[in-house]
Amino acid sequence: MRAEIITIGDELLIGQVINTNAAYLGRELGALGIPVMRETTVGDDLAATLKEFRRAWNSSDVVIVTGGLGPTHDDISKAAVAKFFRAKMSLHKPTLKAVRERFARLGYKTMPEINIGQAMVPEGFVALRNERGTAPGLLLHQNGKTFVILPGVPMEMEFVVSTGVLPFLKKKYKNDLVAIKHRTLNTAGIGESVLAEKIGDPAKFLRAGTTLAFMPNAGGVRLRISVHASSAAAANREIARVEAILSKRAGTFIVGTDEESLQSAIVKQLAAERKTLSTAESCTGGLIASMITTVAGASKVFFGAVVAYDNKIKVRELGVNQKTLDQFGAVSEETACEMAEGVRKRMGTNFALSVTGIAGPDGGTAQKPVGTIWIALAEKGTKIITKKLQGDFGRKINRERAAAAALEMLRRRLITSLRGDLQ
Amino acid sequence: MRAEIITIGDELLIGQVINTNAAYLGRELGALGIPVMRETTVGDDLAATLKEFRRAWNSSDVVIVTGGLGPTHDDISKAAVAKFFRAKMSLHKPTLKAVRERFARLGYKTMPEINIGQAMVPEGFVALRNERGTAPGLLLHQNGKTFVILPGVPMEMEFVVSTGVLPFLKKKYKNDLVAIKHRTLNTAGIGESVLAEKIGDPAKFLRAGTTLAFMPNAGGVRLRISVHASSAAAANREIARVEAILSKRAGTFIVGTDEESLQSAIVKQLAAERKTLSTAESCTGGLIASMITTVAGASKVFFGAVVAYDNKIKVRELGVNQKTLDQFGAVSEETACEMAEGVRKRMGTNFALSVTGIAGPDGGTAQKPVGTIWIALAEKGTKIITKKLQGDFGRKINRERAAAAALEMLRRRLITSLRGDLQ
Repeated sequence: MRAEIITIGDELLIGQVINTNAAYLGRELGALGIPVMRETTVGDDLAATLKEFRRAWNSSDVVIVTGGLGPTHDDISKAAVAKFFRAKMSLHKPTLKAVRERFARLGYKTMPEINIGQAMVPEGFVALRNERGTAPGLLLHQNGKTFVILPGVPMEMEFVVSTGVLPFLKKKYKNDLVAIKHRTLNTAGIGESVLAEKIGDPAKFLRAGTTLAFMPNAGGVRLRISVHASSAAAANREIARVEAILSKRAGTFIVGTDEESLQSAIVKQLAAERKTLSTAESCTGGLIASMITTVAGASKVFFGAVVAYDNKIKVRELGVNQKTLDQFGAVSEETACEMAEGVRKRMGTNFALSVTGIAGPDGGTAQKPVGTIWIALAEKGTKIITKKLQGDFGRKINRERAAAAALEMLRRRLITSLRGDLQ
Repeated sequence: MRAEIITIGDELLIGQVINTNAAYLGRELGALGIPVMRETTVGDDLAATLKEFRRAWNSSDVVIVTGGLGPTHDDISKAAVAKFFRAKMSLHKPTLKAVRERFARLGYKTMPEINIGQAMVPEGFVALRNERGTAPGLLLHQNGKTFVILPGVPMEMEFVVSTGVLPFLKKKYKNDLVAIKHRTLNTAGIGESVLAEKIGDPAKFLRAGTTLAFMPNAGGVRLRISVHASSAAAANREIARVEAILSKRAGTFIVGTDEESLQSAIVKQLAAERKTLSTAESCTGGLIASMITTVAGASKVFFGAVVAYDNKIKVRELGVNQKTLDQFGAVSEETACEMAEGVRKRMGTNFALSVTGIAGPDGGTAQKPVGTIWIALAEKGTKIITKKLQGDFGRKINRERAAAAALEMLRRRLITSLRGDLQ
């Protein structure tokens, strides 16, 4: 069993849009048990698209194509599909009805004519419902192989994959699926080659079907164990076996596992402890609150935030002392502490995080250059912890670093308190 | 002239890492004047990699490969290159020296043996300096074609591209470069097909070498004009010609161009009018504030926000009447109005936006299903404007749609006031 992905769109080749669809499909197909072996991106070009269809359809069992299904002139995928499979188009009435209803729901009196094309389906293809847009997914199963074409807008593509494509593949290929499991151990404070020396020759402990990847980035080196096995149980056992070896050899350099986001770990930990949180944000401008509230269920632990971008708001809404601002400045440990304690009291939460800093590009001084950021963590009944960040990585990264550092500060505090240790 | 990109790494195929390298290379090569026609991703597999090298080298003038150059067992790219070009490896002393110095600088007494491999270069290849890591880029120019392989870590890849690859290509292909220019017009408040009807048949106004793409996302539909021309001046003239046509036909639905986002347009307009803004956010959880504060200089017009995730905070911090919450609920037009007016008064701003809704996945009811969102815009001295959103697109998109709709409401208000019209 092998799948491959073709993503169509000039916007991908010129780098205007980052290809998140390929990553989503790789994850979802892998989780189902169908490994993706190749991904190709081509532009909005009929000849180039047909060439890829031919190559992919000859070499893979499952071909998933995204993009180029919209109603406008630059969407050429459906014509390419019809040409490639020599299929006539016919009107799919349920799709036309759904598209008409969608326009009515959005308050249009009439549906633009151009959308009738959205309901045309090549012969032999099944139309897959798309509740988030007008282009249905299209699926063909022929001689044991499956060809699927999907809209390129991620929210539409994801809807059609989860409701139409995955259920179909799961049923059709149930005897061919493999159990594919991954586990990533995140390390910090050690370089790739030194870590490799500690771990030793992977050939000595990896079995067939198991791979180990070293993935360095700015935060550290991640170690990913990947297993293909006949059952989920066997895959999990193998993951556990290799993880035990790596944990022993890489020891305290391992700081966490998998993709659990910092904010979801925090929401989970706060909920477990029945503790609550608020934030007071200056240079992060609501980014921390926004990150926390991406987590479903955050409402149980997160009361709210005050984004105090203006100094007057710091005084009026957070109770920061005007004297503190005058004496130490808005970007100071003292102001960060008063912001954190101010929001904690106002919101009535157990914890509060505050951030104040100079995100740039303007506003830096010799004493406090762009990138100078103070973070404070207030906790009911104990003293405030603070941290200073320095270094200018550009406005966007400065803000993201500050938000991540604040969340990491809270996560470390929660781990410590769970362990019953003293800070 | 055509370039193509090959990115190597299991982490890309399984969707653990999103392929940002391909987008970066597409942007940089395009800006130089070399169009990228194709991008392929394969796993850490020698046979699959060799197959792609063969296909790409036969069909493109410039082939850029990223990934698999690290020092560990899973990095197979250099072996693939040596095999494909039948090149012997030899030690490149300047690279070995640079790697040794890097380890010394990082505080290591000795360099791990495994890194000697990083200094091995296939015959005929030039080693390109990498100051951000240990793997040099490798470049071969043969029979007018260029083959480059680069480390996969983005910050390392970007260093080698900007300091080594682009200068080489610019010099070597100076007579073959084309001027490639793009311009994107961002629209809001209009669907793709209705916009297409307004614009009419692009074939009637596009010349050869010029394309127009419709790119819908949660914030609106973007229109991208792309031009390939013989000179930058000719390309810019053609862009201006098409932009004038689109601007006339799409009128006020165009909210900004290129990277100018809704929020930066708003910050600019508020600054021009010397008006100020605050936000009161429930389901968006600080997302609007965070979007506004991504804009450098936002501090001039944005005072702050109250993220009132919990109902108690809505009452205490925003002055929402408990009776309003009891009678109409937190997700209601009435609550949205009180939130907007509450934050506007507290922060002392001219405008205030509020959002309250059910982002999901939980919390929906028959009367107020997930995706029900109320938005209000308060303005000093005039009555509050409100808007209701409906439809569930998943938590993430529900939040983004709400934030975009709120910002668009304010932008429309600002346009109207600039014109001196009444709302």
